Amino acid sequence: MSSSEAPAGPPSVRTTVRRIAERASYDPASAHAILDEGLVCHVGLVTDDGPVVIPTLYARDGDRLLLHGSVASRLLRGATDGPVCVTVTLVDGLVLARSAFHHAVNYRSVVVFGQAERIDDPEEKRAALDVLVEALVPGRTADARRPNDVELRQTAVLALPLHEVSVKVRDGGAKDEPEDLDLPVWAGVLPLPVVPGAPVPDTLQPADLPVPPYVLDYRRR
Amino acid sequence: MSSSEAPAGPPSVRTTVRRIAERASYDPASAHAILDEGLVCHVGLVTDDGPVVIPTLYARDGDRLLLHGSVASRLLRGATDGPVCVTVTLVDGLVLARSAFHHAVNYRSVVVFGQAERIDDPEEKRAALDVLVEALVPGRTADARRPNDVELRQTAVLALPLHEVSVKVRDGGAKDEPEDLDLPVWAGVLPLPVVPGAPVPDTLQPADLPVPPYVLDYRRR
Repeated sequence: MSSSEAPAGPPSVRTTVRRIAERASYDPASAHAILDEGLVCHVGLVTDDGPVVIPTLYARDGDRLLLHGSVASRLLRGATDGPVCVTVTLVDGLVLARSAFHHAVNYRSVVVFGQAERIDDPEEKRAALDVLVEALVPGRTADARRPNDVELRQTAVLALPLHEVSVKVRDGGAKDEPEDLDLPVWAGVLPLPVVPGAPVPDTLQPADLPVPPYVLDYRRR
Repeated sequence: MSSSEAPAGPPSVRTTVRRIAERASYDPASAHAILDEGLVCHVGLVTDDGPVVIPTLYARDGDRLLLHGSVASRLLRGATDGPVCVTVTLVDGLVLARSAFHHAVNYRSVVVFGQAERIDDPEEKRAALDVLVEALVPGRTADARRPNDVELRQTAVLALPLHEVSVKVRDGGAKDEPEDLDLPVWAGVLPLPVVPGAPVPDTLQPADLPVPPYVLDYRRR
């Protein structure tokens, strides 16, 4: 991530809340970049017992988010009953300031509010599941067996439009009080990137089956 | 993470919902380990406009979670008005199955439901802020300047008891249908650990100020 390349400069916290579909190009691009790098979102619902926040996979498909799961999933059934809030957060690094008060993390987050709708058309659903697999592992749909009719019926897919979207970014270095700058306390940023490890092959396959390039070269951005 | 050390074995998905304070030792230990490894939680609230899910730092302090932020924060003010749901998710790796349907991620998550309460006593608040800094960077409280009275007043700290807690873990390898096992499609797990990068020193400090060991050796677990 960029913070590992440059000295920890002045911090910046930027928040934009936009109905991005109705706005100029900056906001969607920034929201899309974060959503495309993320893997797991947190879906918030209101239930009779209060709020519930559940992690799940997602994919961005143009100007909507796709979510999927078992048709039996309480999350997915609840998610079409009322408004949802879907949040994606990427943690980029720790910010160590000279004062405890100014410690922080560098992060990028997207919060999406709206009403999710179920995709019922089988062909649209198949296409959405392809998008979900490609969001997880770009290149994978060319290899993996596609869903059969039974699997398709067992899967619920929801779409949430990217209309009401909030983007928040904190980057840069420590923001200390002027009177703290001479304290003999190390300050700076510790980047916390996600770095893929060595692939672990399934033991039930031939040992000479090559690891695909999209696994060997896997990056989230 | 363990999945990088061993062949991708049979998958397991375990869910436990427990009022852990009233239960035997397994559940708290498992929830605590996940909470102690995590850095950012997602707090879900119910507002007049529907659910809101906000990422924020947290710390586990015994059998409660601590959250903090500006006293002006809408999140923190809303979080004491009604029940909240706080979710922490660690993504361990990608699970590539032979079929698109069985693709998954290995992850560990903790979901906490309850009523957060504000900590107002100044000494209890100072202690809580120490716990929050130590959760971010163990060892840091010995070096960083502690909050002064003004900073203390500007900070709201909430405590959420770990009473109603759900732990969910997916680990192991791909779970394919028997009839797919002979497909010539690579299957396995790609670990996705967070690997700290090189520390980036603040440019306003003497170049010879050494990087503390707790930064050089930083690990999330």
